[in-house]
Amino acid sequence: MCSTMKNFVIPENTSFPIENLPYGVFSSIEDTSPRIGVAVGEKILDLRFIKHLFNGPFLKENQHVFEESTLNSFMGLDRKAWAEARLTLQKLLAEDGQLQDSPYSRAFVDQAKAKMHLPFSIGDYTDFYSSIHHARNVGMMFRKGDSPLLKNWLHLPVGYHGRASSVVVSGTPIKRPWGQICPDNSKPIFSASRFVDFELEVGFVIGSPPTDLGQPVPIERADEHIFGMVLVNDWSARDIQKWEYVPLGPFGSKNMGTSISPWVVTMEALEPFKTQNAIKEEQPLKYLQHTDDYNFDIKLEVYLKPNGATESYRISETNYKYLYWTPKQQLAHHTITGCNIKPGDLMASGTISGPTANSFGSMLELSWNGEKPLILGNQETRKSIMDGDEIILTGFCDNGKYRIGFGQCSGVLLPANQPTEGDCT
Amino acid sequence: MCSTMKNFVIPENTSFPIENLPYGVFSSIEDTSPRIGVAVGEKILDLRFIKHLFNGPFLKENQHVFEESTLNSFMGLDRKAWAEARLTLQKLLAEDGQLQDSPYSRAFVDQAKAKMHLPFSIGDYTDFYSSIHHARNVGMMFRKGDSPLLKNWLHLPVGYHGRASSVVVSGTPIKRPWGQICPDNSKPIFSASRFVDFELEVGFVIGSPPTDLGQPVPIERADEHIFGMVLVNDWSARDIQKWEYVPLGPFGSKNMGTSISPWVVTMEALEPFKTQNAIKEEQPLKYLQHTDDYNFDIKLEVYLKPNGATESYRISETNYKYLYWTPKQQLAHHTITGCNIKPGDLMASGTISGPTANSFGSMLELSWNGEKPLILGNQETRKSIMDGDEIILTGFCDNGKYRIGFGQCSGVLLPANQPTEGDCT
Repeated sequence: MCSTMKNFVIPENTSFPIENLPYGVFSSIEDTSPRIGVAVGEKILDLRFIKHLFNGPFLKENQHVFEESTLNSFMGLDRKAWAEARLTLQKLLAEDGQLQDSPYSRAFVDQAKAKMHLPFSIGDYTDFYSSIHHARNVGMMFRKGDSPLLKNWLHLPVGYHGRASSVVVSGTPIKRPWGQICPDNSKPIFSASRFVDFELEVGFVIGSPPTDLGQPVPIERADEHIFGMVLVNDWSARDIQKWEYVPLGPFGSKNMGTSISPWVVTMEALEPFKTQNAIKEEQPLKYLQHTDDYNFDIKLEVYLKPNGATESYRISETNYKYLYWTPKQQLAHHTITGCNIKPGDLMASGTISGPTANSFGSMLELSWNGEKPLILGNQETRKSIMDGDEIILTGFCDNGKYRIGFGQCSGVLLPANQPTEGDCT
Repeated sequence: MCSTMKNFVIPENTSFPIENLPYGVFSSIEDTSPRIGVAVGEKILDLRFIKHLFNGPFLKENQHVFEESTLNSFMGLDRKAWAEARLTLQKLLAEDGQLQDSPYSRAFVDQAKAKMHLPFSIGDYTDFYSSIHHARNVGMMFRKGDSPLLKNWLHLPVGYHGRASSVVVSGTPIKRPWGQICPDNSKPIFSASRFVDFELEVGFVIGSPPTDLGQPVPIERADEHIFGMVLVNDWSARDIQKWEYVPLGPFGSKNMGTSISPWVVTMEALEPFKTQNAIKEEQPLKYLQHTDDYNFDIKLEVYLKPNGATESYRISETNYKYLYWTPKQQLAHHTITGCNIKPGDLMASGTISGPTANSFGSMLELSWNGEKPLILGNQETRKSIMDGDEIILTGFCDNGKYRIGFGQCSGVLLPANQPTEGDCT
């Protein structure tokens, strides 16, 4: 190799500058074993290859975490270790850093050539409902005449348990589900869902050692357990959901799949993008109070690429900062009754909708339950997601100096399975 | 060792005869590493010690599953392997079987001296709501005047996702939780729960290799994925639940802990105790129909041992057979939208109540929401579980020839954590 050739170049305006350094799990044609990498420019830095370079006091004895096929063990260390990893990487990746040396050329893999895997093994998956605009929209559509917010909503971050096994990495196709729907509101029929929807969400991932059952995480220490964030699309079958969800919440309507973006953006990278917490319409109870900002200015977009089209069309533009409840509040509430948490637990925000009609985070809201079909850039219309449509979520922070990108969270909706004889009776 | 001394004797009337052979994970003082064992009489047979004896066609290459510290890999094989393991064990444990030979004395550990562990690593935990008596009782208490069953209940096995991380093995104490309650139905307060309850349930455990996302398990093949059953106590804080559960279901009110019995009783052991399925009040959709019996005659009892008492008092006596939806129906419904399942997933029945007032499966029903306090055998009364009370669930099948015991699922309720200053404001 020519010694003047660089192992990596970080382009300007990249989503993955040295200030980002999100972690993921990838494999390549040359080496099909899933391993931990860091996105930098258009490359992935293979941490297994350079694990011996993590020689600081908190990682020297823990280099094995970079040999694993998920982020769980690394996330299961603590904030000091995470900070040391980031500092080490920033040093190594500096323009004149050690990783430009020719022996390290093999530590870099083109993102375009890599296959991304689920970055962590998900212990439990929780889904909150923390956007006040989304909750109000749903209330206005389905409980006309009543107060749009249910009476507990302003007092606690409403949430429910989702299905961890069906969380998949971006790019995995999702199949239109069969299930029970009840169009006449009296007797259910068996049908492929007629209203598949996306939900634009952002989830945080739990790190630090597991907590003990019976020991709540106080809000003052919640951030010690928050490792980073991913984009989440919580695919939903609205018609199945409508029939099943009373009284115990959504179940099969969400189990067909939940997509997450492959790169976990660390809270350290998001630190400069902290912004004011939402102003509370009711004073929350003490265990949910914090005065420091723990809201984030993350620009979020949703694109729909119609079946067979070459272009994708933006259908929503919103921001994480519109959330009412912060991740600290979500985590404090989640654990207040004594629930234990583990590295790899995923806690999603719930659909993120902004205040304006073009900033809603679901097709349900964008088409106002089908009343106002969405007109795409190619003049096709949509009330729900059609077979073959691809939904692409993107997210990034930008401060004029650099951009912290989340990459994409995408998935194509496949047609439902063929029914077998008698299925519909 | 004296060669006439037996390594094991299976007493008459034992809960663990050779027809049972439930699997669990245990450790002992001599060897503190958790390992797989089988309950037989008053002993545990250490399968790690005898793994080389599993030499049949389905296990010969899979002996490593008996070296692990959970049942997941063994359960992740298939029904042929499970049947072969059972047959092998029954042969080895016969009166003149090989395990009476003196070198195998070390393969047996006294149950009384062993420590039991969570028998499998729980992937996802699902809780159904399949007892019609329970659902009607709850409806009568909380929706007076309305039809006691919600309109979807007779059409589908209502269920929701629970928290897997907080599932613990029998014997683990549970702490009274703090949380939001709303006694005046207008503004919530922060309080230790004033109404901690038990829920008597039985759960089935998923076996066979994982299924693919998007591929429902048809009801005809559901039993291939059901490995065995455990007793479940889904501890609940009723006051927290009441305030939080609309619209997304129970959350923190159940996260303080769910106890399971340590021995997984296999479906093969339960086979002779199959009994008629509940008669359906509505014809279910085709994907939920099966004509073969897949209901089970399992006698269930609940005992309460008051704080400081030496005796425990039976407070409920019921039967698994009162359930409306069968495990096959539960599993077919769980996967109909494409949800994938994995060995180690736990699917609980929901509270099992019988038709009579002494056969209800929760304190909520036994005390009719506090209206009729329960009088214990020592004349103490209870409307809910008090600090220091121990709740003990037992289960067994009996056909006059032998008994298939589940053992116990027990837990003591510990007092709530001390509040820290300002907690209640």
